[in-house]
Amino acid sequence: MQNALNTNASSKWVCVALNDLRQLDGLHKTFSEAPYKQPPTQPVLYFKPRNTWSEDGATFPWPVENQLVVGASLAVMIGKTCRRVSAEQALESVAGYRLLHDLSLPEQSYYRPDIKGKCLDHSAPISAQMVPVADVAAPNDLVVNTRVNGTLVSEQSIRQLQRDINELVHSISHIMTLQPGDLIAVGFPGDRIVLQPSDQLQSELVSTAGVQLTLNNRIGEASV
Amino acid sequence: MQNALNTNASSKWVCVALNDLRQLDGLHKTFSEAPYKQPPTQPVLYFKPRNTWSEDGATFPWPVENQLVVGASLAVMIGKTCRRVSAEQALESVAGYRLLHDLSLPEQSYYRPDIKGKCLDHSAPISAQMVPVADVAAPNDLVVNTRVNGTLVSEQSIRQLQRDINELVHSISHIMTLQPGDLIAVGFPGDRIVLQPSDQLQSELVSTAGVQLTLNNRIGEASV
Repeated sequence: MQNALNTNASSKWVCVALNDLRQLDGLHKTFSEAPYKQPPTQPVLYFKPRNTWSEDGATFPWPVENQLVVGASLAVMIGKTCRRVSAEQALESVAGYRLLHDLSLPEQSYYRPDIKGKCLDHSAPISAQMVPVADVAAPNDLVVNTRVNGTLVSEQSIRQLQRDINELVHSISHIMTLQPGDLIAVGFPGDRIVLQPSDQLQSELVSTAGVQLTLNNRIGEASV
Repeated sequence: MQNALNTNASSKWVCVALNDLRQLDGLHKTFSEAPYKQPPTQPVLYFKPRNTWSEDGATFPWPVENQLVVGASLAVMIGKTCRRVSAEQALESVAGYRLLHDLSLPEQSYYRPDIKGKCLDHSAPISAQMVPVADVAAPNDLVVNTRVNGTLVSEQSIRQLQRDINELVHSISHIMTLQPGDLIAVGFPGDRIVLQPSDQLQSELVSTAGVQLTLNNRIGEASV
């Protein structure tokens, strides 16, 4: 069962927070204080449920909360059911790589699961295309570039992630069974990009061989 | 599109944490300290994704972590798409009431979204039957009773919830669009029930007219 998004209607879209090494460095002081007293020892995950799913080319309506940020991530698409796989064998369960824009309200607190900010309707457009896993010799060389109105505002290399693709499929498959069509957005730049009404948003997935695919979304106009 | 669970394959199962008034009283000191300094002002939500869905009568395998707790909740099943509904009109979008067993690992911390503990495969069995919304004159009179091996271990009245059914459909529909087949587990007793291998678990949904439906699950044997 495949829908227009080429993912199963019943799939899980899992996002990994706090995976950018530069962001983690900046949070060192916060994590050393109560209640944490240490940085996360496991991947910090959140879900983008069905009402958030959207597509390349879609216009995202400007939210009534009158503020909006975005993070762009490589999204690993699962091709085979996997449960408790090793990091070495993780890519055998992966179909390929897509891009995801995670549109959200700015985060209010690190201490509460931010369901309200993360689960806006249509806030998770993904690229129409997918780069097959076999076409990328070195996934750690992949880079996600993001432009707003044509200006480059973010460059995120997989190499800057604390946990890479193999490690994440390994550790998340120990938490829950991953099924064909499931997506894992592997990591966002620590500084989310602040958006304005009518912005044009474009991300590209780049390998050493050049741009592999793009994801384009427009932000709607502010309502009066 | 309906599956054996009588819910859409693409639906969201949303659970409401920290909604038991007695539990909230007990947490008063924790909430008054850093980093919160006040109790939650919005419902605290988490998801049970597709890999957790299970059925009445299913045996839940004893987890490798060698510990397990359960909470039982009334689960509101959405019948009509709803977005930003008022509390007064909330029940117009509800199809009926079911039961959900939320099987999980004991919580380690209030300060991190507990994806690992909550997302065990098959950890969210729901009742096969549903009580139609029109059959319950006063939803606040509903009670969920839970027995382990025949002994009553928990009684949770909807009246003991900080936010009742109308209030939750209202507030959650302001966070995300609710669609037919979506479930909201409205609240669990603050003290989760500690389970042992081979336990028999039974919950019943009781109205002033008597038992409306039941949910039965068995816990698997410990692996050697």
